[in-house]
Amino acid sequence: MRIVIPLFDGFTALDAVGPYEILHMLPDADVTFAAAEPGTITDGAGSLRLVATASFADVTEADILLVPGGPGSIRGTTDGALLDWIRRIHPTTTWTTSVCTGSLLLAAAGLLTGIEATTHWSAVDTLESYGARYTARRVVEQPGRIITAAGVSAGIDMALRLAELIAGRTAAEAFQLAIEYDPQPPFDAGSYAKAPQAAKDYLAARH
Amino acid sequence: MRIVIPLFDGFTALDAVGPYEILHMLPDADVTFAAAEPGTITDGAGSLRLVATASFADVTEADILLVPGGPGSIRGTTDGALLDWIRRIHPTTTWTTSVCTGSLLLAAAGLLTGIEATTHWSAVDTLESYGARYTARRVVEQPGRIITAAGVSAGIDMALRLAELIAGRTAAEAFQLAIEYDPQPPFDAGSYAKAPQAAKDYLAARH
Repeated sequence: MRIVIPLFDGFTALDAVGPYEILHMLPDADVTFAAAEPGTITDGAGSLRLVATASFADVTEADILLVPGGPGSIRGTTDGALLDWIRRIHPTTTWTTSVCTGSLLLAAAGLLTGIEATTHWSAVDTLESYGARYTARRVVEQPGRIITAAGVSAGIDMALRLAELIAGRTAAEAFQLAIEYDPQPPFDAGSYAKAPQAAKDYLAARH
Repeated sequence: MRIVIPLFDGFTALDAVGPYEILHMLPDADVTFAAAEPGTITDGAGSLRLVATASFADVTEADILLVPGGPGSIRGTTDGALLDWIRRIHPTTTWTTSVCTGSLLLAAAGLLTGIEATTHWSAVDTLESYGARYTARRVVEQPGRIITAAGVSAGIDMALRLAELIAGRTAAEAFQLAIEYDPQPPFDAGSYAKAPQAAKDYLAARH
């Protein structure tokens, strides 16, 4: 079970690490973080560095491709080499997946044209501009083999569903227990529909 | 707002990255990943490497100390240098915090004696063996300045509460919205009390 997670400068760390923490528990999981060149890749917030141990050229196939988002994924939509690599890997996968604005990379690579997908709430228009049909669910599973997750933390929910599809419900429940994923957020502001206007204004003022 | 996250071989990546993804949004946040020596630190699953940019010797104070757990934190309870460093940093902090079995490090350093704390469900007896009073809540906040979170994913909930304490509720809600933390786990197996026996048996058979 080869799991490949591409990294690029400006990725969002939790997009990658949330699902990673589930998927590495799959039977015979072999996780590779890959990038244009092996080495240290800095996240979108600028304080975290993950190591890519393989180059995109080294990775020619995957059972699961998991594409994270982040500010760098917006820039990535014009990175021809990255998009070409995604187009090369996709035909080899059992599951091609994304978290957050990672779906913009799948879309820019032409994989989401005419199909249902999701993304971070702030990137809906951009996703649709590539011809994907935005669907306001946390995890959007296509009958084919593409699964997209909403913003950042939604990757954890997606990974649990993916674990169920691959290893069965008991395994997925075991992984949920292993990471003690019994979420109890102290507020109910995690979706654009539910967040108070003041929280939206706060975020807008940061940018 | 200096936020310091110690790393050690065998840490659990989500313990660190979940809270990181919230706390780096705090006003004037300055996040440092530190380790015994600067360099690449491998997680407990063995496939992920995070970069520590500072050594413990370089870091002499923190506003927030956030100690992750993982298999390495169990070994860390006998690492005198790590425990001494935690004892040196604690008097300088506004908040000393842990996620998952990171609380065993705080406990082994003597910081939890006689006070309420939590940890991963599998480490309750060990936590209590250090004289802490285990409390079955997801986030345990001491009147002093110590906050401990339950297993792995609980660090996200803890970080939102910490953000509220530091920057106010609207800011914390904005951070929740930014990471679209509107959890929808596909199963209800995230706590030991609720997980089916088959999931517990599956985990036990892995070890």
